[in-house]
Amino acid sequence: VDFYQKEYKVNNIKHLYPMNNLDLLARYSDLIVRVGANVQPGQIVNVTAEAYHRELALRLVRKAYECKAAYVNLDLVEPRVTRERILHSSPEDLKYIPSYVESKYRELVDSQAAVIRLIGPEYPEVLADLDPGKVNSTRMAQYQAMKYFYDEGISHSKVQWTIAAAATPEWAKRVFPSLTGEEAEAKLWEAIFETCRVNRDDYLNQWKLHDITLLRRAEKLTQMGIESLHFTGPGTDLIVGLSPMAVFRGGSQESAKGFSFQANLPTEECFTTPDFRRTSGTVRATRPFLINGKLIRNLEVRFEEGNIVDFHADDGEPTFREYIHSDSGAKRLGEVALVGVDSPIYQSRIIFEEILFDENAACHIAIGSAYKFCLEGGTQMSKDELESVGCNESSVHTDIMISNERVDVTANLRSGEKVALLTQGKWADQ
Amino acid sequence: VDFYQKEYKVNNIKHLYPMNNLDLLARYSDLIVRVGANVQPGQIVNVTAEAYHRELALRLVRKAYECKAAYVNLDLVEPRVTRERILHSSPEDLKYIPSYVESKYRELVDSQAAVIRLIGPEYPEVLADLDPGKVNSTRMAQYQAMKYFYDEGISHSKVQWTIAAAATPEWAKRVFPSLTGEEAEAKLWEAIFETCRVNRDDYLNQWKLHDITLLRRAEKLTQMGIESLHFTGPGTDLIVGLSPMAVFRGGSQESAKGFSFQANLPTEECFTTPDFRRTSGTVRATRPFLINGKLIRNLEVRFEEGNIVDFHADDGEPTFREYIHSDSGAKRLGEVALVGVDSPIYQSRIIFEEILFDENAACHIAIGSAYKFCLEGGTQMSKDELESVGCNESSVHTDIMISNERVDVTANLRSGEKVALLTQGKWADQ
Repeated sequence: VDFYQKEYKVNNIKHLYPMNNLDLLARYSDLIVRVGANVQPGQIVNVTAEAYHRELALRLVRKAYECKAAYVNLDLVEPRVTRERILHSSPEDLKYIPSYVESKYRELVDSQAAVIRLIGPEYPEVLADLDPGKVNSTRMAQYQAMKYFYDEGISHSKVQWTIAAAATPEWAKRVFPSLTGEEAEAKLWEAIFETCRVNRDDYLNQWKLHDITLLRRAEKLTQMGIESLHFTGPGTDLIVGLSPMAVFRGGSQESAKGFSFQANLPTEECFTTPDFRRTSGTVRATRPFLINGKLIRNLEVRFEEGNIVDFHADDGEPTFREYIHSDSGAKRLGEVALVGVDSPIYQSRIIFEEILFDENAACHIAIGSAYKFCLEGGTQMSKDELESVGCNESSVHTDIMISNERVDVTANLRSGEKVALLTQGKWADQ
Repeated sequence: VDFYQKEYKVNNIKHLYPMNNLDLLARYSDLIVRVGANVQPGQIVNVTAEAYHRELALRLVRKAYECKAAYVNLDLVEPRVTRERILHSSPEDLKYIPSYVESKYRELVDSQAAVIRLIGPEYPEVLADLDPGKVNSTRMAQYQAMKYFYDEGISHSKVQWTIAAAATPEWAKRVFPSLTGEEAEAKLWEAIFETCRVNRDDYLNQWKLHDITLLRRAEKLTQMGIESLHFTGPGTDLIVGLSPMAVFRGGSQESAKGFSFQANLPTEECFTTPDFRRTSGTVRATRPFLINGKLIRNLEVRFEEGNIVDFHADDGEPTFREYIHSDSGAKRLGEVALVGVDSPIYQSRIIFEEILFDENAACHIAIGSAYKFCLEGGTQMSKDELESVGCNESSVHTDIMISNERVDVTANLRSGEKVALLTQGKWADQ
């Protein structure tokens, strides 16, 4: 009996490549489980995906068991459940999260599990028309329940975690509005496979080479002694200050247990934790981005002494306002990342409307929580110590893309020197 | 934006009735949430369903929120995950269940939640070809993790719980092997709607009348003072002894909080807890039934002093053997139930290969755990007291149908009188 004969919903990719689409999915599953999460024998594994993606998710489960995982849990999420909840619940009820959610994620952290998340919305607009305040408070309650997971599991890398994408017709139609649903879905799968390099026979080796490039670049940026980054371009003149402890990261990370993993598939960025007190100037977003299921278009923001003091967006302004008032850290930066226009995601010319891809197309800043592992000794610091070096804490974290071929990035070094890092969006050293 | 426009997989029922199939689904959701679980304002609700049923499950979620539930969790189960686990795991690994499973179900019990389960297998054979020992030990580990839920939540009725069915193509093909997949699925939906009475405009009133019938019959059986039930028919000559505390139940139950609920949709049985020490004789199953995903066909069993001492089955003998050796209670009875051939499920002449229906087509006995609420004062008794009145305890519970139009059931009363309860399968008092 073969329980995998049923046609998987990658309906239309079969003519894209001279190979069976199931082989491509097998490669992609292999990449996610072995390179992304790097599942180890005896490890607990948690896979989360929207229910739409269950055929791919099941392949990840199987692959994890093939890697000798001790136990694999699959959480299939029905996105419309949250919509029903918000539509019918009082603000008080929206704060409730059952305590087993917290204990579950605590257990995943304490057992040093591998955590895989598949993204790709079946209903991209499922929350877009709801009250931004209710949507945001629902998100915050969920965050509070998972705080230990984010603080210890993610920020201290106690788990190996990875996020990868799968196409859906509705998402694809937004990315390729001029195509029909089926053509769009095929094209989106093509973009996923290409940016994740699984259309190449030597995809595992390609990933190794790519990883080395990112690791070396991050190492070099850390060594430069950057005091601040200066972004200039149309609508943008922004200074992002870095602490002397700032460490750039890129490519594979290492878990507390010593296993490497790729947190994002694909990944093209080198990123670090800024000093949240030293952001100033104006910045214009170069791509739209989602907050609480609502697309924010043409955002312009002004920072003073680290805080957002003014902003404008053509779409999603109420959602953005609600979001940056979630807590005191939500108006401050928690990440700055450098990506060159040589990125295959930028080169694809596709706006994915999905941060996993769009953040790897351009330099970006993130409002909200910072990564402790991007500060020298950061994972060992107390809350007070982290605050004293400008490491931001917040319940939010959202990337805002701020570069393209018209943006330059200059590093102001502690030595007083100025070094052009990116010129017209392109890495200066290439 | 309407997130429910997508065609639901009840492809073929639209021509069965002179009404929209979505209206039938709305009625069915209404029945499950309001009559089955009887969700109360402020209550926590848990819905479990195979991922295949998510459109119907989502309607249950919405209906529960309409009943002002405080929080509704939807667990979508991918049945092939368990298959992958058993295929790849060592016997030792199969014993592992994350502790959050226990804490979750403990929380549902302690908060006196409403618990809804949709059954109907997408892959009826998903575990059928696997090692029966591994399948059974996986089931036992799951049972252990959920023991508090079964003992306190179900057996003490601390939760309102209900189980209802939804059709799948593969299940339907097994029920109607002479029909095509689509015709079979339509026919199975028709059977579900008819046996649950939602094809009638006054379905809520029909349920009330039916409930009164079952409640009165159970009351009458309890009052008779039955010392034992005697089943006779082809291959069957079985005595099932009852304790003086035995209480027959049928129709709606009442939760510890005082809310009525229907544990099974449909339901046609009046059932009680036998004295596990006093079963003797031979019995022939009149329908096949599933254990651990394997169909047991043409079972014949001999009991001596309460225990199975011999058995034979044409199919599934190794699975049955493994199951009754799960623990000391697995060879003994935990339930006896009376169902007349006037049951709409029997009258449909359909073998559903699904216990929710088949148990409501015929009298049945269950090996395994007994219901404490079927003994006078049983929910207040200690473990020792329960044992002393012959209330069986086990990690298993499986119904075995033992009647049809050739089986008689006689009650031996404590007064010495013999009363014919069912003659040729038919209630004698009707």
